[in-house]
Amino acid sequence: MIVVLKQDSDESDITRVNSKLVSLGVQTQVTVGSSGVVIGLIGNTSVINEEEIKGDKSVEDVIKVKEPFKKANRKFHPDNTIIDICGRKIGGEKLAIIAGPCSVESPEQIISVAKSVKDSGAGFLRGGAFKPRTSPYAFQGMREEGLELLKIAREETGLPIVTEIMSPYLIDKFIEDVDIIQVGARNMQNFELLKELGRATRKPILLKRGLSNTIEEWLMSAEYIMAGGNENVILCERGIRTFEKFTRNTLDLSAVLAVKKLSHLPVVVDPSHAAGMWWMVEDLSRAAVAVGADGLIIEVHNDPANAKCDGDQSLKPERFDNLMKSLKDIAKAVGREL
Amino acid sequence: MIVVLKQDSDESDITRVNSKLVSLGVQTQVTVGSSGVVIGLIGNTSVINEEEIKGDKSVEDVIKVKEPFKKANRKFHPDNTIIDICGRKIGGEKLAIIAGPCSVESPEQIISVAKSVKDSGAGFLRGGAFKPRTSPYAFQGMREEGLELLKIAREETGLPIVTEIMSPYLIDKFIEDVDIIQVGARNMQNFELLKELGRATRKPILLKRGLSNTIEEWLMSAEYIMAGGNENVILCERGIRTFEKFTRNTLDLSAVLAVKKLSHLPVVVDPSHAAGMWWMVEDLSRAAVAVGADGLIIEVHNDPANAKCDGDQSLKPERFDNLMKSLKDIAKAVGREL
Amino acid sequence: MIVVLKQDSDESDITRVNSKLVSLGVQTQVTVGSSGVVIGLIGNTSVINEEEIKGDKSVEDVIKVKEPFKKANRKFHPDNTIIDICGRKIGGEKLAIIAGPCSVESPEQIISVAKSVKDSGAGFLRGGAFKPRTSPYAFQGMREEGLELLKIAREETGLPIVTEIMSPYLIDKFIEDVDIIQVGARNMQNFELLKELGRATRKPILLKRGLSNTIEEWLMSAEYIMAGGNENVILCERGIRTFEKFTRNTLDLSAVLAVKKLSHLPVVVDPSHAAGMWWMVEDLSRAAVAVGADGLIIEVHNDPANAKCDGDQSLKPERFDNLMKSLKDIAKAVGREL
Amino acid sequence: MIVVLKQDSDESDITRVNSKLVSLGVQTQVTVGSSGVVIGLIGNTSVINEEEIKGDKSVEDVIKVKEPFKKANRKFHPDNTIIDICGRKIGGEKLAIIAGPCSVESPEQIISVAKSVKDSGAGFLRGGAFKPRTSPYAFQGMREEGLELLKIAREETGLPIVTEIMSPYLIDKFIEDVDIIQVGARNMQNFELLKELGRATRKPILLKRGLSNTIEEWLMSAEYIMAGGNENVILCERGIRTFEKFTRNTLDLSAVLAVKKLSHLPVVVDPSHAAGMWWMVEDLSRAAVAVGADGLIIEVHNDPANAKCDGDQSLKPERFDNLMKSLKDIAKAVGREL
Repeated sequence: MIVVLKQDSDESDITRVNSKLVSLGVQTQVTVGSSGVVIGLIGNTSVINEEEIKGDKSVEDVIKVKEPFKKANRKFHPDNTIIDICGRKIGGEKLAIIAGPCSVESPEQIISVAKSVKDSGAGFLRGGAFKPRTSPYAFQGMREEGLELLKIAREETGLPIVTEIMSPYLIDKFIEDVDIIQVGARNMQNFELLKELGRATRKPILLKRGLSNTIEEWLMSAEYIMAGGNENVILCERGIRTFEKFTRNTLDLSAVLAVKKLSHLPVVVDPSHAAGMWWMVEDLSRAAVAVGADGLIIEVHNDPANAKCDGDQSLKPERFDNLMKSLKDIAKAVGREL
Repeated sequence: MIVVLKQDSDESDITRVNSKLVSLGVQTQVTVGSSGVVIGLIGNTSVINEEEIKGDKSVEDVIKVKEPFKKANRKFHPDNTIIDICGRKIGGEKLAIIAGPCSVESPEQIISVAKSVKDSGAGFLRGGAFKPRTSPYAFQGMREEGLELLKIAREETGLPIVTEIMSPYLIDKFIEDVDIIQVGARNMQNFELLKELGRATRKPILLKRGLSNTIEEWLMSAEYIMAGGNENVILCERGIRTFEKFTRNTLDLSAVLAVKKLSHLPVVVDPSHAAGMWWMVEDLSRAAVAVGADGLIIEVHNDPANAKCDGDQSLKPERFDNLMKSLKDIAKAVGREL
Repeated sequence: MIVVLKQDSDESDITRVNSKLVSLGVQTQVTVGSSGVVIGLIGNTSVINEEEIKGDKSVEDVIKVKEPFKKANRKFHPDNTIIDICGRKIGGEKLAIIAGPCSVESPEQIISVAKSVKDSGAGFLRGGAFKPRTSPYAFQGMREEGLELLKIAREETGLPIVTEIMSPYLIDKFIEDVDIIQVGARNMQNFELLKELGRATRKPILLKRGLSNTIEEWLMSAEYIMAGGNENVILCERGIRTFEKFTRNTLDLSAVLAVKKLSHLPVVVDPSHAAGMWWMVEDLSRAAVAVGADGLIIEVHNDPANAKCDGDQSLKPERFDNLMKSLKDIAKAVGREL
Repeated sequence: MIVVLKQDSDESDITRVNSKLVSLGVQTQVTVGSSGVVIGLIGNTSVINEEEIKGDKSVEDVIKVKEPFKKANRKFHPDNTIIDICGRKIGGEKLAIIAGPCSVESPEQIISVAKSVKDSGAGFLRGGAFKPRTSPYAFQGMREEGLELLKIAREETGLPIVTEIMSPYLIDKFIEDVDIIQVGARNMQNFELLKELGRATRKPILLKRGLSNTIEEWLMSAEYIMAGGNENVILCERGIRTFEKFTRNTLDLSAVLAVKKLSHLPVVVDPSHAAGMWWMVEDLSRAAVAVGADGLIIEVHNDPANAKCDGDQSLKPERFDNLMKSLKDIAKAVGREL
């Protein structure tokens, strides 16, 4: 950590700031130059509350040299984390393909989609039971009933199920019923929920990136879960909010590379929510595999034209099947397998 | 609502889409032009699930003519909503000034700040007990103990208290203890929390705008609370996330005007979090009053250099006192009083 | 085009707006519903000045059904445009690889890099002679002298040269010396420059997307060049400005898909400027090819540690050579060749 | 300037980077801590090419302690710059009010608007002759003829004229004819144009902030003009591009404060282009004066419903007159006069 003082700081300002830093338990090294004074901190700077230092009238800036995340940091855990879900792995050589409808709508729908995505080679079934909707008047999901249908689909196909949690009240139920618990983009900084998911379970958490959250904030939210003891976090890039209106969001594939550099956690990509248009999903899926993602999460619906939500971003089973075939060569080209 | 069909739609496409719309209970009017086909919907279009329509292969776009919020909509409630909190009003001619520290830190701190802001003319006391922090290792607030201290400060000064809720588990406690329950920017789309705040209480909710949420999404979140039965919602603009890095966020004062046009709900401005720098707070406060905000929420700390959080955006009590004086003329110039 | 009237419009408002539209030469169809009045326009709506209509007090919104670009529009030109540069094609089955240093720095540097990228399989040489720099005190390029060195490098290798134009004064010189004239991101809406490049030459123009320009604006800038008569426009996605700070810009690969859908023009991707970090360039290049780009533009420098600009985003020749090899399989997987 | 080395840098890395820095003519001070190595630079760091340093494989980051702008920097010029235009001042106690239509459309229009804004108290006349339009098919302005009409309006009213330059070819004409030469948002980083405006004239330049340019980039563009010798630069905040779609752009009033802190140059605000809706202009104008802007630039049109461009953001003369009256009290409250 480096503390930069204001250019007009005098001897007493330097002494005051320096003494405060020393009193907090770090060593300091003061450099006085024509362009100002900088104080370099040596030792365990994680005890320093950056904002407390910035409050001093002579402090121009506090610059972090180390990343603020620890358990999620690759520096302290150089090997990739591979997460095991009922014998299936996420983060290893084999790509994880999670597929299914936006919402669970009926037994027929979820079972039929589950079977077809399994036949095409998907390893996990997704489906929303509790749906975060912008409008209180929109379909809010089948809720508990939807969970039950997902369990039936799992029984029929053997596919582990991935679904979103929206309230801490439901944690016990999700721990019992769900194989991968998803935290949606809008809840990425719902810190109380994250803390409980860290404390109460070791079930894998699929943590979606918030609509306008930086990569550092995203990793800090993973850190919330990990700090509680649950290190089974899977990150999911799903597009960020930008000025561009043609696509629903802007898929940020460079975020996959950034996360891989900064952290050891696996990262999957959700092209369906990013683009918001089914006809972009196949090409973006290929790009996500080419860039090095550990997997994909793709919306598939047997009847998109009548889907209760996000019909226009869902692939039909036949298209999904074709996509899976075309992904094989891309995966191989980057040293992965499907 | 207007449904635009793709240019290459043929007779059967038009018939299919039109029949579907009619079956949903609306009347339609089809216009066929050289630039394509549009279907205008007449009747209660709120029954139409936009996404279901968009899923049809011939639909190019669905255009909403009416805003999706109802209870928050000024069209159905032309007069300003004025909210009464222990006899003090928000939304009327008199400006609501909410002031206090970022976090409650000790009895001395909160009582001293409460007294001083009251003396300067503030009408409400703010102070964080539960703190949403990006890092799990940062100070998380004094939590329940902080709430107790706020109650003591209220007793000493008579100022109603405003503090942030982060978990649905605490709703009962907040209903009992707090005068205005704040929902922070990061929880603006924590829909389960919003629903409960709508159902369980009639206490006023101060709903901050999310970091990158549109004005429409913000009003839809207010609608979540109102749909549950609690119409006492106060909106709070606190800066949005943009590419600019000099300020912590970009204060969007045009949002105040947009909200006033679209909705009858009162809206206050938080210049402290928007700018992230205390020296901008006074000028931005004057601008917020000039633009027509119904009040301000300002961070004031007796010792910013040692504040546990956000010290660099807090005003000292003397500065806050000066600000209050200078606001009088601005308020008068725009037909308000302090 | 659809004109939506305000909900409180009365008979005389409808008549006034409708008459104005008819007087402009289009047919209209008025739909009166409970949710308001809409007027659908039939005929040649390109004569309508949208802003003129919006100025009427009863007009709520004017909605375009057709895209505003014509010559760049795929609807009127379904086949891909393939551009021929000295016998090399951009937009066809074979990918166009443009490589070279950020700036031309010396004869040795540019000739050595040119030879090495040619040996690795690049088809075009890039190199900046006139450099757009944020600071007037930064290296501004070797300017005319740089152009001369590029010509020598072309003679030595046979690679066509691509370089950026910054001023209309230099158009004649560029037409004579350069094979593909690049318009940089900051000049994407320098309309006077675009007009002259449309009028004065048929040389291919490589049009980079502006830092925060929408896809529609980008295509409208292509339209400026094409409207002047020069239809040889190559689009280049190079990252957009978002809130994320880890990468210099955010590479928007979905823009490639959008452009391919909306337009027949070829589009290449510049991963070097997007990421701003050399270690991301290879993976992003693979993703760009996988998504369907028609080519890549990559910074390669023989001595990045001492480059005069953008050293940290340049690949060394050996790495570029490896990248080219690894691209072959990806290209094949998506039906292209290198 | 501070150079941060990567954590795994060894003795030889430190020596290599340090020697390079010393060879460039600065003194260095190396601090080795557990959190890495930092090298503080002492002396004239403006000779250091940041990117050259960043290219070294051991360099993690280069942190600027000083702003990169000099002539625009308040540190070297503590007093406000006041610019004199034909005896009228911008930057002093009196607010500069620049008003007029988006485009010059006819002699009657421009003279009538000029007279009315003068009567209301405006000090300068604006009007576009050369118009930057997204579409090549949109009205491009009356061009040279528009300039002539502005001169006639100036003769009739005595108001100095402000109009936008779009091409370096026209600099001589603008120098002769125009009192304040405007550089539009889209040309803020048209560096060749900026350089010529710095070299060729001492006429004041009104430099609009680019749609998505940071405050630092904006000041660097001012620096381009000033470095050429023309220190008469007036900055203009006109809204930035964000995710919000309700307003055309997001007016960033905190930018006024940032510019005032960092620079001595005057800054005016354009609420008309920022909001894009006439009914927001009055309130935003009051906010801009309250925040401390040195003036306003406002679109006024005698017949907005039939304006050739931007009719929906133009005020009618009567409304402008009322606005001017209401600004008086706000101006007085912040120590300014109208």
